[in-house]
Amino acid sequence: MRKIKMTPYMIIALSFFTVIILGTILLKLPITLKEHGSLSWIDAFFTSTSLITITGLTPVLDLGSSFTIFGKVVIACMIQIGGLSVLTLTVYIMTLIGSKIGFNNRAILKESLNQNSLQGLVKLVKRIIMISFIIEFIGFIINLFIFIPTMDNTYHAIGVSAFHAISAFNNAGLEILGFNNHFLNYHNNLLFNINTGVLSILGGLGVIVIYEVMKKRSWKKLSIQTKITLKMTLGLLIMGTVLFKLIEQNQMTFLEVSFLSINTRTAGFLTVDLTKVKSLSIAIIIPLMFIGAGPMSTGGGIKVTTLYVMLKSLFSFGRGSQTLTHKRLITDETKIKAFVLIQSAMILIGISTFLLLAFEETNIQTALFESVSAFSNTGMTLNFTHKIGLGSKTILILMMYIGRIGPLTILHLIYSKKASNSNLVYIDEKIVIG
Amino acid sequence: MRKIKMTPYMIIALSFFTVIILGTILLKLPITLKEHGSLSWIDAFFTSTSLITITGLTPVLDLGSSFTIFGKVVIACMIQIGGLSVLTLTVYIMTLIGSKIGFNNRAILKESLNQNSLQGLVKLVKRIIMISFIIEFIGFIINLFIFIPTMDNTYHAIGVSAFHAISAFNNAGLEILGFNNHFLNYHNNLLFNINTGVLSILGGLGVIVIYEVMKKRSWKKLSIQTKITLKMTLGLLIMGTVLFKLIEQNQMTFLEVSFLSINTRTAGFLTVDLTKVKSLSIAIIIPLMFIGAGPMSTGGGIKVTTLYVMLKSLFSFGRGSQTLTHKRLITDETKIKAFVLIQSAMILIGISTFLLLAFEETNIQTALFESVSAFSNTGMTLNFTHKIGLGSKTILILMMYIGRIGPLTILHLIYSKKASNSNLVYIDEKIVIG
Ligand SMILES: [K+]
Ligand SMILES: [K+]
Repeated sequence: MRKIKMTPYMIIALSFFTVIILGTILLKLPITLKEHGSLSWIDAFFTSTSLITITGLTPVLDLGSSFTIFGKVVIACMIQIGGLSVLTLTVYIMTLIGSKIGFNNRAILKESLNQNSLQGLVKLVKRIIMISFIIEFIGFIINLFIFIPTMDNTYHAIGVSAFHAISAFNNAGLEILGFNNHFLNYHNNLLFNINTGVLSILGGLGVIVIYEVMKKRSWKKLSIQTKITLKMTLGLLIMGTVLFKLIEQNQMTFLEVSFLSINTRTAGFLTVDLTKVKSLSIAIIIPLMFIGAGPMSTGGGIKVTTLYVMLKSLFSFGRGSQTLTHKRLITDETKIKAFVLIQSAMILIGISTFLLLAFEETNIQTALFESVSAFSNTGMTLNFTHKIGLGSKTILILMMYIGRIGPLTILHLIYSKKASNSNLVYIDEKIVIG
Repeated sequence: MRKIKMTPYMIIALSFFTVIILGTILLKLPITLKEHGSLSWIDAFFTSTSLITITGLTPVLDLGSSFTIFGKVVIACMIQIGGLSVLTLTVYIMTLIGSKIGFNNRAILKESLNQNSLQGLVKLVKRIIMISFIIEFIGFIINLFIFIPTMDNTYHAIGVSAFHAISAFNNAGLEILGFNNHFLNYHNNLLFNINTGVLSILGGLGVIVIYEVMKKRSWKKLSIQTKITLKMTLGLLIMGTVLFKLIEQNQMTFLEVSFLSINTRTAGFLTVDLTKVKSLSIAIIIPLMFIGAGPMSTGGGIKVTTLYVMLKSLFSFGRGSQTLTHKRLITDETKIKAFVLIQSAMILIGISTFLLLAFEETNIQTALFESVSAFSNTGMTLNFTHKIGLGSKTILILMMYIGRIGPLTILHLIYSKKASNSNLVYIDEKIVIG
């Protein structure tokens, strides 16, 4: 009997799926839920997908009061697993227990981490995890100064501090405090805004970027990849903040608009009520969520580097010249990869929007917003996820899952059969475009 | 003094602009308007742009009762000029009056017609005009059988028949009959639906496709370009019809859904009230308008061939193979051109949607619909164009104009300076996508 040969794409897709299924079962356990049977299978599956893909959408109105302390620990662990990504963690555990890492596992890790070189991957994984835990620990300590003074129960405040450090750095955007609209109460708490904001930004930049900046301590020495990620992140944050303030004027404070701008980039925490903001702000949030965070980070979306390559391609096309960045060439292969990613993401979001409209009584604005939020693993909602049916839940589960493993992985999975005639030479065909 | 060297892109952009300005002045003439001064300059400019770009959006509630017979002739001529495209017509008139056509003019015509070869362009232009007029004449004769029996004034019916043959074949989508909701009264007139539908489809395929089919009379002998255009057009028409019928069920007859499906592909005539259809139907109309018609036709949008190349690229990327069509290779250059066109179109539509939301009290659904309708030169409206301010009118004028001359022309115009260092060889830079 021959073993089925698994491609890295299959392994990524299957391992995420396996962890989601395990998470679903954990969430349904009697010791996880305060009230036995209060969570349906589909809602457990939805919530598990949301946690592992660190999206933060959930049909459960109030996670805090639905789950036991054990349940909340499970949820925090699922976010952490999602954030470090299933494979990174698997490989790390494998090194801890001393097993050899073969070439195949490295190839998987390469796909999962989007790294171009196989060398030093294991070392890299160790670093990722170490730096993540250090940042989360610092965030936890600062959180203590925020939550202990504002809460009656100190033990509860400590738990909340730990949970929110994990949730913020992993861009999960979930709150689990046992009462509604919790974060809205902290909308003008400066320390809360800074700590949560910085944790989200750092997570969205990605540990590899943070590590490189710490090590090189000089803008000139940074890799082009890292320079692009830093510039685009800063530019988009400022753009979002300025636009939201211009649109909402006195309806939002400066703290609120900057927190909103940070969190559209797939963290997803909210200190404002989205159902009360203008349609114009929604029209800014949608593309910001779609663009998302850095390419090797806990954030989602198409990634800032993909946007950068796309924009560079448009400009150089207009000039009729090669596409250059920092005196290097962006190849046609890289450009096509960026375009294919953006186009397949948009087609998926279009189909999702259409299906949500088919299943629910809503308009294109809401259906599009929820689709982009799920796909980009942001998790913001226009008060939609709580009231949808089975069909819409299934759509959003699929969107969160595809958004996390990446539409390119899906394309490779669907069309996995080898091109049978790849050695033939074909004559070019000119086709009129536009 | 050195003459400024005009690129074909500049000439295309400027000639369309010049004709629009001339049209604006014509529409403001006392003999054009029934009531002197009843049309503001911005509305005249808007309507002129709409006619020359054969879009059909207009802030004038009832064109029929606002303009004199002379005015209606002017409007018909402007649609015809727009349809044949300003440059094609200019060159034809030049050949008629016997002047030599130099290489430069041919180069312009080449850009304007999207043709890859310079040879036989003048002959092609003559054919385009001859075939267009023959089809319009047949459409006019059939229209007589529709409008003479249903109208009191026979002379008026003859005028209406001529106007609507021109409006339908050129995918203008304008009606000018002197009373409101005229076409809605013909929603179950079989001959009207067939005649207007066939004229719109033929115009959307483009005269070059029609000519090739007439000449070769065999599927096998057709060019790949023509095969793709025919297959995509048929596929999209059937898809639209089936989806609209599934969505609207008994709310629309089969004749109504098929007429709607045909007209989303940038003709823009309506026999149903769009403000009463489901959001789900709107979510189908938007992408169909965006895709548009054939690449060398009176229709707008990104064009069916562009969509075809994009989809082929996605599939072949997933397979990790070359992009083939009909046993020929689609080059990376063609693929990038398609992606650049689609992306710049989407960015423009995004900016337009945002600005309409900034200027008007509306939602993303309506603002997006109107933006796509203007850009794709379809001219359908959710009862929006009549009530907007100066800012929104300017946005829609720009979108109609850019949609007609093409976003790629705009990209070339903005970045027209030569790449100064195009002979240098650059090192490739790998950038992580997604
Ligand atoms: K999130
Ligand atoms: K039209």
